[in-house]
Amino acid sequence: MTSSPDTAGARRRFRELSEESPERAARMLAAAHPADAALFLLDAEEENARRAFAELTPEEQAAVLEQADEGLTQTLTADLSPHALKEIVEELPSDEAVDVLAEIDEGVVEDVLDSLEAEDAEELRVLRSYDPESAGGVMTTDFVTVPADAHVLDAVKALKREGEDDEEGLGVFVVDAAGHPVGYLSEHALLSNPVHDQVSEVMTEPYLVGVDEDQETAASILHRYDLQALGVVDVGGVLVGVISQEDARDVLEEEFTEDLHRMVGTGSEQQTRLPILRRVRQRMPLMVVTVIGGLASAKLMALLTPSGASTAGGSAGEMQAVLRYLPLIIGLAGNVGVQSSTILVRAFATQEVGPERELSVLGSEVMTGTLIGLICGMATFFVASWIEGDWPLGAAVSLAIFAAVAWAAILGCAVPMGCRRLNIDPAVVAGPFLISLSDISGVSIYILVATHLVGLG
Amino acid sequence: MTSSPDTAGARRRFRELSEESPERAARMLAAAHPADAALFLLDAEEENARRAFAELTPEEQAAVLEQADEGLTQTLTADLSPHALKEIVEELPSDEAVDVLAEIDEGVVEDVLDSLEAEDAEELRVLRSYDPESAGGVMTTDFVTVPADAHVLDAVKALKREGEDDEEGLGVFVVDAAGHPVGYLSEHALLSNPVHDQVSEVMTEPYLVGVDEDQETAASILHRYDLQALGVVDVGGVLVGVISQEDARDVLEEEFTEDLHRMVGTGSEQQTRLPILRRVRQRMPLMVVTVIGGLASAKLMALLTPSGASTAGGSAGEMQAVLRYLPLIIGLAGNVGVQSSTILVRAFATQEVGPERELSVLGSEVMTGTLIGLICGMATFFVASWIEGDWPLGAAVSLAIFAAVAWAAILGCAVPMGCRRLNIDPAVVAGPFLISLSDISGVSIYILVATHLVGLG
Repeated sequence: MTSSPDTAGARRRFRELSEESPERAARMLAAAHPADAALFLLDAEEENARRAFAELTPEEQAAVLEQADEGLTQTLTADLSPHALKEIVEELPSDEAVDVLAEIDEGVVEDVLDSLEAEDAEELRVLRSYDPESAGGVMTTDFVTVPADAHVLDAVKALKREGEDDEEGLGVFVVDAAGHPVGYLSEHALLSNPVHDQVSEVMTEPYLVGVDEDQETAASILHRYDLQALGVVDVGGVLVGVISQEDARDVLEEEFTEDLHRMVGTGSEQQTRLPILRRVRQRMPLMVVTVIGGLASAKLMALLTPSGASTAGGSAGEMQAVLRYLPLIIGLAGNVGVQSSTILVRAFATQEVGPERELSVLGSEVMTGTLIGLICGMATFFVASWIEGDWPLGAAVSLAIFAAVAWAAILGCAVPMGCRRLNIDPAVVAGPFLISLSDISGVSIYILVATHLVGLG
Repeated sequence: MTSSPDTAGARRRFRELSEESPERAARMLAAAHPADAALFLLDAEEENARRAFAELTPEEQAAVLEQADEGLTQTLTADLSPHALKEIVEELPSDEAVDVLAEIDEGVVEDVLDSLEAEDAEELRVLRSYDPESAGGVMTTDFVTVPADAHVLDAVKALKREGEDDEEGLGVFVVDAAGHPVGYLSEHALLSNPVHDQVSEVMTEPYLVGVDEDQETAASILHRYDLQALGVVDVGGVLVGVISQEDARDVLEEEFTEDLHRMVGTGSEQQTRLPILRRVRQRMPLMVVTVIGGLASAKLMALLTPSGASTAGGSAGEMQAVLRYLPLIIGLAGNVGVQSSTILVRAFATQEVGPERELSVLGSEVMTGTLIGLICGMATFFVASWIEGDWPLGAAVSLAIFAAVAWAAILGCAVPMGCRRLNIDPAVVAGPFLISLSDISGVSIYILVATHLVGLG
């Protein structure tokens, strides 16, 4: 099949189907690639998604959950019985099973683990004990080892026997009697070396990291040296897991999104799917910093030009006071605009937001911005009125903050959406142009408000 | 070996060694992993890097160039003879050879191609004809195919015979008599299926893209469906190339960096290694937009409060005029600060800048910021003096721009560098905190300058 990542039509069809019939929606899921099925479910109403998902076999459910992110996993597993969860967990590779269990209530997890075979449960308990951001948190424990005196054919047979359901491309690690890795054979090496060679003659030195190593470090080693697989060892040097290329790529993508969102002060989860209050809470720390910084700068300016306020008086004094709060207003509006646009640019790139969700995302982001504007505006009203001893000025500042921030949220969504429609790369326009636009509107709004409330000029 | 991506010590050693003896430096390169060797060369003085590189065998040179980015490839190949280049090209897989040739003068490329065997030259000419940003531009033409009636053992043998030097993990494509792909077998499938099965019974449907498809689309298909390899077909549907997981990961990383740099209006090449004037030129478009936007907003504000300028007169009128230019100053300083910090955050993440290069990067970024400040300041001086008919005001604005922008460049470098030293994630601090800092300093600088030059208050 000649594929294209444009699945908008199918996503819309599934959304409609899931409202009419969970059974037919489930059949559409089962027929699709699990990665597409996960996208379909992400787009449907939560209740409908759950109902369609419940119609799948445990094997199909496991395949979809392997492709689902944290939020979707939480949604889909929320209503499942411990028995249903157990059947799914049995179908999953150990590292994916741990990721699914991480989204489920502690009590239910214990029930699920108790109902598994003792050996499997123990393995999952050990994996769950690692920091999710560490090498131990992303490695799989389903890997194949052979001793150094085995032949290539033995290694191939071992892979065939034990590794049938394993992730692709992991290859075979060569270990000594104590389980310390001494060599590695990629699948390519297994295929291209004579079957009767001893593995010790054809193996390469294995690349290894400690189980507590940061996942980003592990991923970047795998990446830098173009490895097929990276071995993970415990403090005793015993091989306890393997990180695949796919795991590493997921880690790098996750870290990139995290960096980007940190740079603009939002949480790193899928922002467009969070409740509005949670978005507000995640973004407040940056706003608090900006408000404190802006108020401090207003105070600083008052100290730097003390003569002005006292001697000029009247209009000139008012004007100077107005000037001092401009950076705060521009800063807050810029923050909110850049946050909305960054979230959208990234959500477009990762297909989190398709065209059919644009309107609802616009609405929720504007609500988020408006709430942030309201909170910051009110806080500033009290502090500014107190600093300046002039409540009309305080009112002008807080009203301008509210209006400029709400407007910036609209711009921050509308600009990337417009770009996508006009086939312009949203990333080019979303940053700098947006800030210029938001600065200019912020100043204009403030001047207008101040002219009326404080009676400048 | 238990690896760690921290190669700072070795990088410093190589830098010193390359100054003393190209031969010993070359021995250090040959002993290192090619990926590390490329990092070493990136850190050395260009002339020393070239000399050490020239001491390597063509095979070693090819291995290093496979890991080098565009800038380093350009540096290392600049002095090589067509004969030396030909010997390197013969050692490279076709897609990597094309990337190397792309960095060489057209005339020399023709000499190199003419000296190759006719078949190889023709293959490279075809590959060179594809858009570098397309699927054709990243695919390799070194892949293995078998007919549908072959057995698994035949496919394994074909891979052993033809694919020995191929990239790992590509597997085998199954094609019909006309060369149309009808199936795919991963290396894992070749290893885990009985050798006497017919490939048509065990193959999976192949995933394919057109040769002109955007490279990002191709990479995201490979990524989304967790493929080991993606087939590339020409307009007639004939298989002409294959994209590997490694290729796809490189594309995704390249696109991440590109998006990020576009969002802050810098070029996407390695900024910290570009000549200063080139950095200035790449960043000017955003500055021009900001200056035009800032001047337009000053004009707009004058129109919105027309009475003020004429009736208030004296100090209040001056004050209003000063106020109008504040967004321009803050905007320019914010741009420059965010550009410097984004470049550094990304350069830290990709290891482009190690601790030993920090000082020289700080110096060159501040020079870049200062030059941008000088240009924007002078342009604004003329326009603002003309709009306001008041050259002391124009001088205050342009001086403040110059000082605030240069200061923002210092902040933009110093904050991420300080964070790295204190083990704080630079991404958290580089965006929002930096903008707040730069806003506050920008306002303070402007007020100070304006107070003295225009005699406010």
